[in-house]
Amino acid sequence: MQTPRVQLRLLLAADKTFGPGKADLLTLIQSLGSIAAAGREMKMSYKRAWDLVEEMNASFSSPLITTERGGHARGGAQVTELGAKVLAHYRMLEERLQQKGDPDLQFFTDHLAPDVSLPSGASSDMFDQT
Amino acid sequence: MQTPRVQLRLLLAADKTFGPGKADLLTLIQSLGSIAAAGREMKMSYKRAWDLVEEMNASFSSPLITTERGGHARGGAQVTELGAKVLAHYRMLEERLQQKGDPDLQFFTDHLAPDVSLPSGASSDMFDQT
Repeated sequence: MQTPRVQLRLLLAADKTFGPGKADLLTLIQSLGSIAAAGREMKMSYKRAWDLVEEMNASFSSPLITTERGGHARGGAQVTELGAKVLAHYRMLEERLQQKGDPDLQFFTDHLAPDVSLPSGASSDMFDQT
Repeated sequence: MQTPRVQLRLLLAADKTFGPGKADLLTLIQSLGSIAAAGREMKMSYKRAWDLVEEMNASFSSPLITTERGGHARGGAQVTELGAKVLAHYRMLEERLQQKGDPDLQFFTDHLAPDVSLPSGASSDMFDQT
């Protein structure tokens, strides 16, 4: 049986979080070079993608994402050096927990119901409130 | 500046998760001995609390919560030995990540915006989709 996949959310402040959704958006902006295209890939509206970008930029000491014309440019967007580092440290935290043979995670694997198994295509958009 | 608080969600299956909401509900059922009272404490409907209990019970090899009269009893509920262990392993995973001086978490602390700080009363009901 497959080990449960671990997702992390960091509570940075009362109304500021960094979790799987923002991490995936950042990853997609990095590879696609566009906030609009990254949002589309995640099936979110352009406004939603932009709100998340603004929240990320406001949470850190300098922006994680910059756009070519500064404002709501639908064109080019870049992940900054700080953005890349934030993403790397977030993935590192995830990976450290996801390690094979972790005894606490293994407990879950060992006690799942027989009909419960994680499909390999499981993605972070399954995140819910519970 | 305070270290960001870490929340964990385990993806057990496509439609089954174990995260901060269920962990808190389990904790409250443990101390209050009632699904209804635990749900009220978390400001959720009785139906919602019961749905989460049923999802937890269906996810594992045996129930995490039992009720005195079996069904939708509004009366006594108990967390089973397996339930207590699931909770303990979940909290252990959280704590291991939350350790002071963790270099990956520290990176976030070091690069937060000056006006971003975590109030001490921060609780898991701040969980959102991102």
